[in-house]
Amino acid sequence: MQSKLIHEADGQKTYAIVLASGDEAMASLKSFAQAEQLSAAGFTAIGAFERAELAYFDWETKQYRAIPVDAQVEVASFTGDVVLGPDGEPAVHAHAVLGLHNGSALAGHLQRGIVRPTLEIILTESPSYLRKRLDPESGIPLIDPGKA
Amino acid sequence: MQSKLIHEADGQKTYAIVLASGDEAMASLKSFAQAEQLSAAGFTAIGAFERAELAYFDWETKQYRAIPVDAQVEVASFTGDVVLGPDGEPAVHAHAVLGLHNGSALAGHLQRGIVRPTLEIILTESPSYLRKRLDPESGIPLIDPGKA
Amino acid sequence: MQSKLIHEADGQKTYAIVLASGDEAMASLKSFAQAEQLSAAGFTAIGAFERAELAYFDWETKQYRAIPVDAQVEVASFTGDVVLGPDGEPAVHAHAVLGLHNGSALAGHLQRGIVRPTLEIILTESPSYLRKRLDPESGIPLIDPGKA
Repeated sequence: MQSKLIHEADGQKTYAIVLASGDEAMASLKSFAQAEQLSAAGFTAIGAFERAELAYFDWETKQYRAIPVDAQVEVASFTGDVVLGPDGEPAVHAHAVLGLHNGSALAGHLQRGIVRPTLEIILTESPSYLRKRLDPESGIPLIDPGKA
Repeated sequence: MQSKLIHEADGQKTYAIVLASGDEAMASLKSFAQAEQLSAAGFTAIGAFERAELAYFDWETKQYRAIPVDAQVEVASFTGDVVLGPDGEPAVHAHAVLGLHNGSALAGHLQRGIVRPTLEIILTESPSYLRKRLDPESGIPLIDPGKA
Repeated sequence: MQSKLIHEADGQKTYAIVLASGDEAMASLKSFAQAEQLSAAGFTAIGAFERAELAYFDWETKQYRAIPVDAQVEVASFTGDVVLGPDGEPAVHAHAVLGLHNGSALAGHLQRGIVRPTLEIILTESPSYLRKRLDPESGIPLIDPGKA
């Protein structure tokens, strides 16, 4: 993982973050978020994975179902945010759309993606914070903009 | 719908807008756009819908064909803009990619999406305006950057 | 292609770029990037194509496989970046997700897309630069944030 701060003004920072073959996307973003103490950021990315795991939140069981993707795929869309989790640590949330060899698409919550050969991320951090709290209905932490 | 202004400088404003179960995404964004008098904004979002309606613009008939999605889906991508419509009111335009339980993807123009449990939107408003005018060829209003 | 600068501060510029029927998306963005001398930009877009060509990078052959899309499609997601290529010229890299008449999705690296009737692009340029260098393993130029 390499990064470059490409703009900074009034507390808002924009970074280019570039992952290389073998980097795992979610762990890399978490590590970047901890190092830079991100608390209210959004990002988009494109690139490719050698394999990945998507997930679908099953409302009946309130559990994520794993969708393994054991193929080299284009990362056609990769969008998400970084906010403070219930534990006060940065929490990375990303969804992705992946393209297979024939162009067919897979989409969902991203659990992990092993980069090959690159993932080009543009991330903008705001000088503010957002916080998640456990949502009793779904059983997962959700952003609560009113939560201090 | 809850929102928080997470950055403001030189007239540019960035908001986190968080929708909750039962909120309809397009109506919520329209209501936010009217309240904040948005005239040139872009947004991205991730989350999930309990059901949605996509649409495809059929060039032969010049009509949108409805594509009902009657399932809980991951909102893998949700991108769009807010500009002034021909009537001077903010017009919200969004496209989405939705992930089904097995990871297969549906994509199109978003007509409506009922959130469950969350939709996390990051929206940036510019201190400018863009205006749509009716395009005679397609019969729909399109952004005309030169239109005052 | 028409464009409007909708925000500028501290060297960061945000543009709305609107393409019309018959414009080719990649060539139009390349032309805009050259005219504005972009060296570190990110963009997102929505709209529709009358036809397009996606591609998949085949890791075995180290070649892109063409995926022709000979149909009117919704551009459900269009994300990418502009940096300096190995030749010092702006290089545009974009991935897209396209929606067919029944909502099924195609995803991949975008080679070309013929707009019909519109493509609405929001592009943010940073007052910095990023540079690509040829990656010996994949044989394609990749962003090297440490490269001057």
